[in-house]
Amino acid sequence: MSESIEALFRPRSVAVVGASRQPGKIGYEILANIVRYGFKGKVYPINPRADRILGLRAYPSLSSVKDSVDLVVVSVPAKYTVDVMDEAGEVGAKAAAVIASGFKEVGNVELERELVKRARKHGIRVLGPNIFGVVYTPSRLNASFGPTNVIPGQIAFITQSGALGIALMGMTIVERIGISAIVSIGNKADIDDSDLLQYFVDDPNTKVILIYLEGVEDGKRFVSIAQEVTRKKPIIVIKAGRTEVGAKAVASHTGSLAGNVVIYSTAFKQAGILQARTVEEAFDWARAISYLPEYKGGPLVVVTNGGGAGVLATDTLAESGVRLKAPPKSLVQEVRNFLPSFASLGNPIDVTGMISNEGYVRALVAALKNPDVGAVLGIYCQTAVTDPTVIASMLIKEVKFMGGLPKPLVLTLIGGEECYWAITKLNANGIPAYSMPEKAASVMAAIINYERSRNAVCKRLEELKAIYH
Amino acid sequence: MSESIEALFRPRSVAVVGASRQPGKIGYEILANIVRYGFKGKVYPINPRADRILGLRAYPSLSSVKDSVDLVVVSVPAKYTVDVMDEAGEVGAKAAAVIASGFKEVGNVELERELVKRARKHGIRVLGPNIFGVVYTPSRLNASFGPTNVIPGQIAFITQSGALGIALMGMTIVERIGISAIVSIGNKADIDDSDLLQYFVDDPNTKVILIYLEGVEDGKRFVSIAQEVTRKKPIIVIKAGRTEVGAKAVASHTGSLAGNVVIYSTAFKQAGILQARTVEEAFDWARAISYLPEYKGGPLVVVTNGGGAGVLATDTLAESGVRLKAPPKSLVQEVRNFLPSFASLGNPIDVTGMISNEGYVRALVAALKNPDVGAVLGIYCQTAVTDPTVIASMLIKEVKFMGGLPKPLVLTLIGGEECYWAITKLNANGIPAYSMPEKAASVMAAIINYERSRNAVCKRLEELKAIYH
Repeated sequence: MSESIEALFRPRSVAVVGASRQPGKIGYEILANIVRYGFKGKVYPINPRADRILGLRAYPSLSSVKDSVDLVVVSVPAKYTVDVMDEAGEVGAKAAAVIASGFKEVGNVELERELVKRARKHGIRVLGPNIFGVVYTPSRLNASFGPTNVIPGQIAFITQSGALGIALMGMTIVERIGISAIVSIGNKADIDDSDLLQYFVDDPNTKVILIYLEGVEDGKRFVSIAQEVTRKKPIIVIKAGRTEVGAKAVASHTGSLAGNVVIYSTAFKQAGILQARTVEEAFDWARAISYLPEYKGGPLVVVTNGGGAGVLATDTLAESGVRLKAPPKSLVQEVRNFLPSFASLGNPIDVTGMISNEGYVRALVAALKNPDVGAVLGIYCQTAVTDPTVIASMLIKEVKFMGGLPKPLVLTLIGGEECYWAITKLNANGIPAYSMPEKAASVMAAIINYERSRNAVCKRLEELKAIYH
Repeated sequence: MSESIEALFRPRSVAVVGASRQPGKIGYEILANIVRYGFKGKVYPINPRADRILGLRAYPSLSSVKDSVDLVVVSVPAKYTVDVMDEAGEVGAKAAAVIASGFKEVGNVELERELVKRARKHGIRVLGPNIFGVVYTPSRLNASFGPTNVIPGQIAFITQSGALGIALMGMTIVERIGISAIVSIGNKADIDDSDLLQYFVDDPNTKVILIYLEGVEDGKRFVSIAQEVTRKKPIIVIKAGRTEVGAKAVASHTGSLAGNVVIYSTAFKQAGILQARTVEEAFDWARAISYLPEYKGGPLVVVTNGGGAGVLATDTLAESGVRLKAPPKSLVQEVRNFLPSFASLGNPIDVTGMISNEGYVRALVAALKNPDVGAVLGIYCQTAVTDPTVIASMLIKEVKFMGGLPKPLVLTLIGGEECYWAITKLNANGIPAYSMPEKAASVMAAIINYERSRNAVCKRLEELKAIYH
């Protein structure tokens, strides 16, 4: 099975059944994305009425391809898809991504069942139907009709919604969010979230898994697999249908059961899954986790040059279940030497609005280097005596001297245009930075909560093993 | 008293006591902002060791100004401020903005008391001390040491935090958020939130009041004034110290009592104040309210071209206490004529991903024009068959044809670069638009919750009057 999923992400050859010569058609756009994004394997457009498409030789049928084809992307109307599976079997396909809609989501349960049955007969795993495709950046594979230039990175994004999924694909490009995989999972007739989790847990190119989820069929299996995965990698879920009204909306939208609202939240918690309240929060968390070194426990220290912003971050941390403790004494002793006498040496450490660029960066670096500190949240309000772009440059240089971040660091830089430049520069250098204190605090809380819940899951699994063995 | 507050925002003349010739000094930056931002009244730099500053004639002392001075900005060290009040009295000042720190916030309670006592003796109201200044865009007055080019608009922003306040001033410029006033309220030795609320409620240039609040001294007065204000204009509060840990952080930061967490939330509710969870949410709400026509009740209709995004918006609305009801029959009958047969005519109205630019805009316009609809939330996921920039242009044109929005409309456009362009264009044309569905839903919920709570407050006040009269 994992070989079939492997064929979805790392095929040596791809065929597009229903490839079209007409821009705007789905069968054209998918092929064009495969070509434009620079897929290195063989590509076979299948179209009985074309000789060449996008400079590639076209084939009248899959069976006329005298080569093995690992992945078949099926972009023909629903009623023809079943027979395509037989041809796919002939060329040794291991996976099929079935784009067409018109299956279970409109009541055609029988057709969907037949599709999977026929595919299984040939040992083919089916992604979809009713999807916009699949992307895997390490293979330079963009077999989707979404935007082309997905930014390579370490986030695997699984989406049950097509329209929202494509739209968010575009958003990741604008926001420079790095992606390892995007999987439109559609009706989940065969391959489901659990299968993909099992693949991504061992995928060296994926550091964090983000799922837009409306519902799962086999909840028990999902939780049991998810809790094995979260021991190694974080899973972040955006659950649509979190409220009862929302759950009803899901039912009318996809026909899938969004299920009892409380049950889902409990199950996520049990499995160590991080549930985000918004799409933006989910991507903020995922990006930061994909950048940062692992958090290995130990106190979080907040460094701020503005009291009010420090309080707002403290509030958000507390609301997310993270309580600040007094900073390590060794750190207090060190920073006392160079901070103004009226600096407040609690947690947050308030370095005051009088601090210079050097002083602010020095305090951050002291916390980063201190072995008693587990993670650092830096809060900066733009002042007349500092320059956020200088702070960003100095910090990036210091982190390079250290050979990279020794522990998680998240920043917020609040202010005018220079802050926005600094934020872009920091993010481009692997230091997550935001324009709002609550965002940085929410990201830091997610990092800490992941470590906590992973520990809890590990402990529970160990206990279970002790009982049963 | 209101005459004194008036002098703070609409002075005919301003003196800067402690004006400096040296860029970077607070006494220079404040004067420079007053000049650069184009204040139309008279400006008197006071500096005993300068003849001219920034092209203006400087005066050795306030009393040497042979003219009346409405507003005195005091930028000298704390210990000299008390005597400045006597001189200010001589030139007939009505208000003084005392920039200096070193008062109650560091334990100098006596000095602060003396400052107010001396000012009162001359009938002067004091803003501060420990502030970064005051801005009132209709007077082109920027008497602050924050950024210069504040965007004129209809949001009055009161901030108890200096560093955060200045930083957010910069943020509003980058995000093009329109401001009527920015008031750094500091230690609130004299002028407090309640005084300012009483001014802004009748200020025709202010449509919504946004307060960053750490604590209030006289809670009863605040609630009683706020509930009179919210009958006419919305008040949005960012409360720092919302959690117990946060409240302790406030205490250590300003020495002000953040008070019992629950008491504040209850009081806000009672007064009809909207409490935002984050700074960004507060400004999102304020900007949208400052753009939009008043919501006068009636059902909210959600129009979406993506099911998943519609569900996420439904969830956020429900979490904010807004439940969607079936759309008005008259609207369903109308849109049925031009929507695809498989469109879902519930609420959200799912116009499907197959909809064209024209079809999507037509559905929005139908909802805007329908007399049975109270407000419209438009959700758009970028698709291959539509162009968000075209949708934005078409919608802006339609709204102009209508003579402006007849009811609140909030949009979300999710997708790539074209969506971000469309969002900028819509916002520039007074239609609030966001890149994330939860943001648009949160804004719409705030608009509806304001109308509800205002009704509740009005009803309660009427009942009270009936009892006592």
